[in-house]
Amino acid sequence: MVDTHTHAPQYPNNGLGHSLQLLEWLDELTFPLEKQFSDDEYAREVYGQVVRRNLAAGTTTACYYGTLHVPATLTLAEVALEAGQRALVGRCSMDRASPPDYVEADCAASMASTHEFLDLFPRFCANTPLPLNGSSNGTSNQPLVRPILTPRFALSCSPPLLAALGQLAEAKHLPIQTHISENGAEIAAVRKAFPAAPHYAGVYDAFGLLTPRTILAHGVHLSPPEVALIARRGAGVSHCPTSNVNLNSGAARVLALLDAGVRVGLGSDCSGGPGTGVLPALRGADAMSRILAFEGRAERGLSIPELFYLATRGGAEIAGVDAGSFEPGREFDALWIRPRSPGFWAGGDTRALFEKWLFAGDDRDIGAVWVRGRCVSGAPP
Amino acid sequence: MVDTHTHAPQYPNNGLGHSLQLLEWLDELTFPLEKQFSDDEYAREVYGQVVRRNLAAGTTTACYYGTLHVPATLTLAEVALEAGQRALVGRCSMDRASPPDYVEADCAASMASTHEFLDLFPRFCANTPLPLNGSSNGTSNQPLVRPILTPRFALSCSPPLLAALGQLAEAKHLPIQTHISENGAEIAAVRKAFPAAPHYAGVYDAFGLLTPRTILAHGVHLSPPEVALIARRGAGVSHCPTSNVNLNSGAARVLALLDAGVRVGLGSDCSGGPGTGVLPALRGADAMSRILAFEGRAERGLSIPELFYLATRGGAEIAGVDAGSFEPGREFDALWIRPRSPGFWAGGDTRALFEKWLFAGDDRDIGAVWVRGRCVSGAPP
Repeated sequence: MVDTHTHAPQYPNNGLGHSLQLLEWLDELTFPLEKQFSDDEYAREVYGQVVRRNLAAGTTTACYYGTLHVPATLTLAEVALEAGQRALVGRCSMDRASPPDYVEADCAASMASTHEFLDLFPRFCANTPLPLNGSSNGTSNQPLVRPILTPRFALSCSPPLLAALGQLAEAKHLPIQTHISENGAEIAAVRKAFPAAPHYAGVYDAFGLLTPRTILAHGVHLSPPEVALIARRGAGVSHCPTSNVNLNSGAARVLALLDAGVRVGLGSDCSGGPGTGVLPALRGADAMSRILAFEGRAERGLSIPELFYLATRGGAEIAGVDAGSFEPGREFDALWIRPRSPGFWAGGDTRALFEKWLFAGDDRDIGAVWVRGRCVSGAPP
Repeated sequence: MVDTHTHAPQYPNNGLGHSLQLLEWLDELTFPLEKQFSDDEYAREVYGQVVRRNLAAGTTTACYYGTLHVPATLTLAEVALEAGQRALVGRCSMDRASPPDYVEADCAASMASTHEFLDLFPRFCANTPLPLNGSSNGTSNQPLVRPILTPRFALSCSPPLLAALGQLAEAKHLPIQTHISENGAEIAAVRKAFPAAPHYAGVYDAFGLLTPRTILAHGVHLSPPEVALIARRGAGVSHCPTSNVNLNSGAARVLALLDAGVRVGLGSDCSGGPGTGVLPALRGADAMSRILAFEGRAERGLSIPELFYLATRGGAEIAGVDAGSFEPGREFDALWIRPRSPGFWAGGDTRALFEKWLFAGDDRDIGAVWVRGRCVSGAPP
C-alpha cells in the first residue's frame, strides 16, 4: 500500500488536534514538535520507529515530509533505505510565515539547504537500483529511496523560493510534493498572499510546480477550474480523509477528481490524520464518501475496488513508482494477510476475507510485507 | 465502556456487508449465520470468543442480541457471566417476515420461548448481586447479567407479539431492546405493515414498548414528533455510526436527540458495524458528526467530552446500569490504558495521552479491564 502524504516527524502527535483547525494546529502542535528535529539523535530514534511501524502496517511506499533540517531529513532517507521501505523523502522548504525559530532566512538560504540535501542524498543513501526483471516503462530501475522537492505550502514559501523550486524541478526532473486547498482560512490567506493568481492551484502553476511528478495533498475545496488545470498538468492529488476530518477541513470530492481525469492516491497525513498506515485512510475515504452520498452531497460512495485502487496502484501512479499491482513487469510489493486482530474473524471465501480485512482487520493481520521482492517486515508463511 | 447495541452471533461476519442495504443484508448475510446457532456447541465456541474479545477491547457492559434460540442465548448469558462482563442478554422475538427456517411459528410459540428463556435464565446464570458499597439509587444490586426483552424489530414481530412483549415488560419491569428507523426501505415497510401508526416510534409506543428501560438502536431518520415522543417516554437511543455507514443507512442527528432530552449511548452493532468494541463507534460518531458539520448539515460536531460521555455514562444510563463514571457510589468499571499500539505514541500530559488513545490507539493499549471492581481482562499494573 502506498501512503502518498505523511509527515514523519509529526508521528509523536498522532491522535492530537481534534479541536483545532489547520493554521492553529500548525502553530500549537506541529511547528513546536518539528523544531526538535534539529537534534539528529532524536530524529534517528523517532524516524526508526516511524518507518518500522509504517512498514508493519503495510506501507510499502511512503511519500514523507521531513522537517527543514538537512541532517535529520537525510537520516529519514537513510532509515527508510536500511529498513527496505520505498520512499520519497522531502526536506521542507519554508522561508516565511512560520515561527521565528523554525523558518529559513530567505530564498537563498532555503535553496542552499535544498542543494545540500540533494548533493548529500546519494552519499547518505547509497541505494543502487536493483536490476529488475523486464520492466520497460522507465520507472522501475529507480533507487528505492529518492529525494522529492517539498515546498511546504504556498503560504510558507516566498515567490522567489517557489520559482527557484519550480526551475530546479524542471532542470533535474525531480518530483514535488506540497499541500493545496485544505482549509478555508488557509485558502483565504493564500488568496491574500498571491492576489494575482486566479486560484490556489494557479499559484503553483505560475511557478512551474504543477507537473506530472507533483503530489498535491488534500485538495478539499478545489474549484472546477482548478480541478481541470490539475488534470491538464497531470499532477496527482493525495486524498487525506482522516486528516480532513480530524482538522475539520472538509470533504474532498474524490469522484469529481477521478471523473475529471485527476490521478488520486490516499494519504495518512500523520499527524493531521490519526491512523497508522493506509488502511485507516482507506476506511476514512469510504466513510466520508458514503456519508456524502446518503446526505445527498455526492452521487454515490466509493466502491471497494475504487478504494483499494486508491490505496495501491492509484497511489503508486502519483508517486511515480512502478509497483502497486501484480501486473507482469511491476516490482513485487505485497502483504501477506492472515487473521490475528480481534475484529477479523477467519472464514469465508477469498473475497469475504479480503473485505473482512479491509473493514474489520488491522496491522496485526499483516504477517509479512515485501518491497521490491524482499521481505522487509514480519516473516513469510 | 458501554456497548448499548451489538449482535453477538453476527461477530463472524465482521467487515462484510459494505455494498448492501439493511434488508438485503439481513437476508444474504445475517439470517443464514444466525440460523447456525441452533447448534449449541457452535454457540459456545463463538460466544466465548465474542465475550473475551469485547472485554479485551474495553466493553465493560454489553447489550447483546442473541438469536431466537433459547439454549444458545442462555449460553451467551452464561459465558458473559463466567467472563465477568456486565451484560443484558436478549433472545430475539421474531414471528414473521423472516426466512421460513429462521422464524417462530406464531405469537404463542414466541412467547412460550421467551418465558422459557426468562425462567431458565437464573438457573443457567446464577449470578447473585454483589453487596456493593453504598450505592443508593437502586440499580446497583442488580445481577451482573440480566435478560432483556428483544423484539427484533417491528417488521419481524406480529402485532399480538408486540403487545404480549409490552405487557410482559410492564408486568416484570423488564428492559427492552429493539431497532428503530435505520433505513429508508425498512421505514417504508413499517409504514405499510402498521398503517394505523403515526410513525415508526408510534408502533412501539402503541404496544407499550417505549419505556425508560427501552433501548432503541439507530434512530437514523426519526422525525421531530418521534424524537419528542421518545424523550417523553424516557427511552434511550443507541447511536451506531459505523453500522449506519457500513449499511448505507444514514446519519442519526445525535445533537438533535441530546437537545430534545433523549438519552443516547453508542453501539458497535456488530456485524452491521465492523469495529470491535466501543472505540471504533466513538470514532465513527466523531467523524460522522464533523462531516455533517463542515458540509453544513449540522450546527457543529460532537466534542471530546460528549463523545466520551456517550461511550461511558451515556451508555450506562440507557442500559440502566450504575456504572460508567467514577462518581462515588457507582460500581467500579475501569480500563487501564498504556501505549502499545503502533499509532499511540507515548508522551504528553494526561489530557494529550487521553486524546491520543481515543483517536490513535486501540485495544492493545488496554492493559487491564475491571468490571464491578474485579479485573476481568489483562493484568493490573
